[in-house]
Amino acid sequence: MTKQYLIEQIRKKDSFLCIGLDVDLDKIPEHLLQEEDPIFAFNKAIIDATHHLCVAYKPNIAFYEAYGLRGWQALEKTINYLSEKHPEIFTIADAKRGDIGNTSSRYAMAFLEDLGFDSITVAPYMGKDSVEPFLAIENKHTILLVLTSNPGAFDFQTRLLEGKELYKYVLETSKTWKNSENLMYVVGATQAEYLKEIRQIVPNSFLLVPGVGAQGGSLQEVCKYGMNKGVGLLVNSSRGIIYASGTEDFAEAATKKAEVLQLQMKAILNR
Amino acid sequence: MTKQYLIEQIRKKDSFLCIGLDVDLDKIPEHLLQEEDPIFAFNKAIIDATHHLCVAYKPNIAFYEAYGLRGWQALEKTINYLSEKHPEIFTIADAKRGDIGNTSSRYAMAFLEDLGFDSITVAPYMGKDSVEPFLAIENKHTILLVLTSNPGAFDFQTRLLEGKELYKYVLETSKTWKNSENLMYVVGATQAEYLKEIRQIVPNSFLLVPGVGAQGGSLQEVCKYGMNKGVGLLVNSSRGIIYASGTEDFAEAATKKAEVLQLQMKAILNR
Repeated sequence: MTKQYLIEQIRKKDSFLCIGLDVDLDKIPEHLLQEEDPIFAFNKAIIDATHHLCVAYKPNIAFYEAYGLRGWQALEKTINYLSEKHPEIFTIADAKRGDIGNTSSRYAMAFLEDLGFDSITVAPYMGKDSVEPFLAIENKHTILLVLTSNPGAFDFQTRLLEGKELYKYVLETSKTWKNSENLMYVVGATQAEYLKEIRQIVPNSFLLVPGVGAQGGSLQEVCKYGMNKGVGLLVNSSRGIIYASGTEDFAEAATKKAEVLQLQMKAILNR
Repeated sequence: MTKQYLIEQIRKKDSFLCIGLDVDLDKIPEHLLQEEDPIFAFNKAIIDATHHLCVAYKPNIAFYEAYGLRGWQALEKTINYLSEKHPEIFTIADAKRGDIGNTSSRYAMAFLEDLGFDSITVAPYMGKDSVEPFLAIENKHTILLVLTSNPGAFDFQTRLLEGKELYKYVLETSKTWKNSENLMYVVGATQAEYLKEIRQIVPNSFLLVPGVGAQGGSLQEVCKYGMNKGVGLLVNSSRGIIYASGTEDFAEAATKKAEVLQLQMKAILNR
């Protein structure tokens, strides 16, 4: 999917909502456990109930790997369902991968080509040759971890590296990499005040913003500092939507929670 | 597996060799492609041919994810085969994972509990709460990326963060984390001269050293600067051993290549 197409979808749906599909069998409604594939059954119901309100879905791969083979099977079914039924939706493999060059190529192949995700999250610690294999694939997007939403973000990311915060140094360095136009960035909503300075470094890039909702970030703050002319934001909510109810009405509850966010986004986009 | 048991195995086998099981279907002998599970068939043959010469195996998970479901199946079979036939072998999931706390717990569960690996490689960028869930599991080991063997290591890892190289800062910070006695560290062999300073910071920890062989690192240099009283080294070779021959004699060729390294290690251990 091209960036331009994603922007058109955002305008069409009045939404820049991304929904995190982080399926935990201990949290999904009990009646689904009798399904042949409870994980996929849950995802399908969530997708059917929310696809008109969001522009992206983001399965965090850890939640699938935790269930081994059946987790991978459910992941494959979920991405295939999205590709077939909702090809207009932007898909993100939240995998946070990164390895030496020939190995990163393998991850790129697995997630962007074979599974067919539109994008993947990637960790920067190993530098240029660990990220460029992801960037090399046309019309696919590499979402680099810059400033994350967890407490550990302050351990290294905000420390000064050669006179500037490590996350800014990563941002600036990444702009020099080959095919850097295929980069997007992860910036946690819990650090909204940082978005202003990030926008000075990457005025045109998309930012994937987790941490709105369960982790405490504010949508208004994120938009105030992070929005650009092409919107440039994908705001993610996972637990707040998919676990809005733990009983049989979970899909309707998810619709309602997604609607609240989409209406707030619509107001912001049209003001 | 305890660290003490690993040290005993090293002494018993006169070897601190780790063999990387990075299976690429384009590189394995053609006759194996007719097997029901060529990836596992290859791994089984390599393990049968080399287990007496090494103390650890390290499948890089990217090579398995690249083959989707059948890749995961082969990974499960490989780790099960090792657990059953060779429980004395230390197993490393080379996964380079790391995510927010509740998500890292999922990866820890997947690799250290369900699959039953003795250890996993983890990336440090997201800080303390992204690593501690791995450290919490008893008698399992978290191998933190510190200084990697690829060219991109010089993009961030060797830059000065608050007056010291980022990799040293990561090392020192990691020592303050809960259950830090379960930490080991990845230090690339291509940077052997850095090992001296690393040993000053973590005199007692095990270092996993990739990059000997195909990537150009020297075993002598690594041992000169990196060895401690408990040996403290696992030196990895992947391609140099497993692809020593691309024909029917691949297993014998792997034995020979592993033997060369093991004999060098024996000489170093007994001098």
